[in-house]
Amino acid sequence: MGPATQFFVHKKPFTLYRGGELPFVQLAWESWGKLNENRDNAVLIFTGLSPDAHAASSSRDPEPGWWEEMIGPEKPIDTNRFFVLCVNSLGSCKGSTGPASINPETGQPWRLDFPELALEDVAASTRLVVDHLRISHLHAIVGPSMGGMTAQAWLKQFPGTAGRLALISSAAAATPFAIAIRSLQREAITSDRKFANGTYTADHWPEGGMRMARKLGMVSYRSAAEWRQRFGRRKQDYFPPTDFGMRFAVESYLETHARRFVGSFDPACYLYLSRAMDLFEAWDRHKTLAGLFESSGIDRGLVVGTETDILFPLSQQKELARAMEKGGISTRFQDLAAIQGHDAFLVDIERFGPPLKQLLEET
Amino acid sequence: MGPATQFFVHKKPFTLYRGGELPFVQLAWESWGKLNENRDNAVLIFTGLSPDAHAASSSRDPEPGWWEEMIGPEKPIDTNRFFVLCVNSLGSCKGSTGPASINPETGQPWRLDFPELALEDVAASTRLVVDHLRISHLHAIVGPSMGGMTAQAWLKQFPGTAGRLALISSAAAATPFAIAIRSLQREAITSDRKFANGTYTADHWPEGGMRMARKLGMVSYRSAAEWRQRFGRRKQDYFPPTDFGMRFAVESYLETHARRFVGSFDPACYLYLSRAMDLFEAWDRHKTLAGLFESSGIDRGLVVGTETDILFPLSQQKELARAMEKGGISTRFQDLAAIQGHDAFLVDIERFGPPLKQLLEET
Repeated sequence: MGPATQFFVHKKPFTLYRGGELPFVQLAWESWGKLNENRDNAVLIFTGLSPDAHAASSSRDPEPGWWEEMIGPEKPIDTNRFFVLCVNSLGSCKGSTGPASINPETGQPWRLDFPELALEDVAASTRLVVDHLRISHLHAIVGPSMGGMTAQAWLKQFPGTAGRLALISSAAAATPFAIAIRSLQREAITSDRKFANGTYTADHWPEGGMRMARKLGMVSYRSAAEWRQRFGRRKQDYFPPTDFGMRFAVESYLETHARRFVGSFDPACYLYLSRAMDLFEAWDRHKTLAGLFESSGIDRGLVVGTETDILFPLSQQKELARAMEKGGISTRFQDLAAIQGHDAFLVDIERFGPPLKQLLEET
Repeated sequence: MGPATQFFVHKKPFTLYRGGELPFVQLAWESWGKLNENRDNAVLIFTGLSPDAHAASSSRDPEPGWWEEMIGPEKPIDTNRFFVLCVNSLGSCKGSTGPASINPETGQPWRLDFPELALEDVAASTRLVVDHLRISHLHAIVGPSMGGMTAQAWLKQFPGTAGRLALISSAAAATPFAIAIRSLQREAITSDRKFANGTYTADHWPEGGMRMARKLGMVSYRSAAEWRQRFGRRKQDYFPPTDFGMRFAVESYLETHARRFVGSFDPACYLYLSRAMDLFEAWDRHKTLAGLFESSGIDRGLVVGTETDILFPLSQQKELARAMEKGGISTRFQDLAAIQGHDAFLVDIERFGPPLKQLLEET
């Protein structure tokens, strides 16, 4: 957590969506720009699975954030106009309560004793920070990837609290392909013997499982088309070759990403958030997805995605856009010709920025 | 190996494409139909990574083969007209010499002491069986998946030995996406501590690694579109749920396939063949892919694939077809609207059969 991270502690029990309770919750959050007098210029950003609350740099923390080019003065999410809020997801390990936090009853990390987490809980806990900031109506909610699911989980529970909605490379529920990929990632982690049923330590870390999970993640986050352009069949000489690997540039690319990730995310937190994504269904309290959007209170919507995304395929964004329209939301749908697959929203700001800026600023 | 399997033993040293030598090689093969008097009605089938030589049933072995609906009397590969030959790949473990075979020098399985295998070796060893059967000119070579690469490896080494060529859901070389998937599969196996650097035993088998490799294989062999139709978000109750898995039908589907595979294929053989696919480049002895086809002696070609294949994408079949045309082969290219992804050639015989039948039978 950087110097700009703030913490809010809700000192009362927090009941979870699928049962279970946390004695208290801590949320790490960060903000950019200023709340106006009416407190109605807030843009709430929900994150993907692994990012922290540090979405962008600021004078208090010059370190670039995970959506650095998207958020800032005169950037697509313009911090000269908006108060931008990003909260580390409940269940994560970047300052908010999650399976890596200490269970006050035992004095040990929760790990697998953490109650089952739903994205509805991520949304509900984020509400605590929004309330703490005395924001009763959000200008907009922006949800990329898992964050788009959390945004829908917010609308399900708190209709009428936001005016605009951007769902970016997201879905109302996971496809079986996405479930398969995540199920393999979780299996890689839980079957690493160093995972030891959640009792791993810093010296006994399920590194192999986490590496595999991250590499598999990269396979699903990027696109075959991008890799053909970027790597082709180029050989690599950055890492020593192994008997059955490390010959090709694409292999050293995956290895580099895996090494960076392994120590930086808690395995149990990863498992909880990953499972929550699989189980999420936006419509579960309504008969239909359109029903959710109809009662959401959202006026204007934006749905964007790209053909090269295999994890949240474009057909799912079309489904969202149709349901939003049907639910009475004036919706813009855009198929962006980005080549980087699911991760395009993080890197191709030239394409993903303008429609988002338009949604936030149009009058 | 079933009762129809035959064995040919080449009792002399066999030199490998990338160096190294085997003291002798055994090849398991199976055939259907009869060689005509001119011995010019043979259709040679190269297999994908894991199939054995039992491509179809026969009177000697009623057990259905891996391409049962494709091969037989009046089937697309019509055994009333053609003598059909399928050889278990060198490097495999279904009766042909490979890393699971006994190294006569040590009396122990070769495992990782097996010399580096190339698909050119698979082709060259297959030639031994073809020669043994006194076939000097093949009516056609049919290569699905890895088999299509092996077919090209054959043409590279033995130009002028076949008249027709069918490349099915194949490529001239692997994409970085395919390399990534296979690299992860190999990493899953080699990092399973029971792999023990290749010294695993029946009681100490890298089951976890092989399961993961197979599941990852299934993710790349089938298609997201098929799974949406077939499984959607349906829950499963066939296996007991685990903490972080076995909730959805797609998960029990993967588990079922993995369990079937784990004990049936040798881990070291899998690694050798998988690596050989990554390293294969059809054009390496010619300046261009078109050059390979130009000197191949093939008159007529067929290239088929499907848009839903992510492992051997359609763009690669287009590349092959273009190069064949450029090389002077009269080529038919067909984009088949199959939903099952890479595996479609195994299951959608209605689509994949007719163009193949036409190639083999047209005069």
